Amino acid sequence: MTLCVYPVTGIGEIHPGDDLAPIALDAMAGCGITLANGDIVVVTHKVVSKAEGRIADVPTDDAYRALAATEAAAVLRRKGSMIIAVTRHGFVCANAGVDRSNVAGDRAVMLPVDPDRSAHRLRVRWERASGARLAVIVSDTFGRPWRRGLTDVAIGVSGIDPILDLRGTTDGSGYVLDVTEVAIVDEIASAADLAMGKASQVPVAVVRGLSWQRGEGRATDLVRPTSEDLFR
Amino acid sequence: MTLCVYPVTGIGEIHPGDDLAPIALDAMAGCGITLANGDIVVVTHKVVSKAEGRIADVPTDDAYRALAATEAAAVLRRKGSMIIAVTRHGFVCANAGVDRSNVAGDRAVMLPVDPDRSAHRLRVRWERASGARLAVIVSDTFGRPWRRGLTDVAIGVSGIDPILDLRGTTDGSGYVLDVTEVAIVDEIASAADLAMGKASQVPVAVVRGLSWQRGEGRATDLVRPTSEDLFR
Repeated sequence: MTLCVYPVTGIGEIHPGDDLAPIALDAMAGCGITLANGDIVVVTHKVVSKAEGRIADVPTDDAYRALAATEAAAVLRRKGSMIIAVTRHGFVCANAGVDRSNVAGDRAVMLPVDPDRSAHRLRVRWERASGARLAVIVSDTFGRPWRRGLTDVAIGVSGIDPILDLRGTTDGSGYVLDVTEVAIVDEIASAADLAMGKASQVPVAVVRGLSWQRGEGRATDLVRPTSEDLFR
Repeated sequence: MTLCVYPVTGIGEIHPGDDLAPIALDAMAGCGITLANGDIVVVTHKVVSKAEGRIADVPTDDAYRALAATEAAAVLRRKGSMIIAVTRHGFVCANAGVDRSNVAGDRAVMLPVDPDRSAHRLRVRWERASGARLAVIVSDTFGRPWRRGLTDVAIGVSGIDPILDLRGTTDGSGYVLDVTEVAIVDEIASAADLAMGKASQVPVAVVRGLSWQRGEGRATDLVRPTSEDLFR
């Protein structure tokens, strides 16, 4: 089945206290998008964080670094002024997810306090408004070891299990699949990022045509337990 | 612009010596897909490796492990019988990319010797046949530290730069973007994987609607230099 990703343009600057759910719905309507059963709405965390007031003044580089340190539950590595940190959610990323791009003035955006809950709230609103069964993914852009460049991943999830578990599934030759756990929500976040484009300020995309199962998982389920992690 | 990913069904089992380029073109025609300027064709490495004869007998688990060790340029970690290895290309992955799923009998598939060259060869054939300017990505499924689940990434690239470099680009507020290097080909591989589906034996997908720049980069450009890598 063909998978399509529709960028939702026309969402302006988001400010603390803005009600993102109807703002995004209006923008979707302006793009001719009517949410339908099985749609997955991907939202970059920046607009979620801004609406939730997760913005702070960082008049200096030192203030920015101090904020990142405050957001970090643990620091894995340091490189110049950048830290690779574990956030309170358990995610590992640069500067504990505190970011100065796409913010007006000397301000920085932090990750939502509970991105799974943010995703859930948006899903409830959008499902009520549309009558459709949806999934919602809140995304961010993370680096990774070994490979250059960044990719978008899911940091908040609602309505879909983050891991597609293929254990026991056989391939065309009757062999049990080696690949048993697909981080499907990370792949969806990456697909959405392609349609959004980094520099074009499109914070929402609708993914349609994917076959997925409704689930109650959370993005924090994606955090590999420290005991199983060979690279800390 | 809407991004669409079309799975190419109808490609049967691939055997050593098979000519993958026309086989895939026939399957595309059967799916009603005519390659057009700007299309990106994503091919899972399994069929590329099989066509190139990168298959070996592994009658026992020991033989499988020995093969993985042979394919590894270096071993970063061990976990039970699994190794996290650096391949000769520089990629870091489980068992040096040697995989037993989707292979008939007691056989294993290795990575192509030069996946960038494999991608290039396919691109040349498909561009000649279609008259369209294309990019080709050879993909594989890799795990990663810190996050559970696997995602598809690019291990071979032709016609497109693997990294979208946004250095110096400003966002809507006039701020220079924090995110400067997007691993766009990895995001494309992930998007393609969603449309292919892991268990359904679809080894090719066509990605359409993405704005990308022609480039001569290689997937090995994605390998983070050891000197810059904090997690080895």
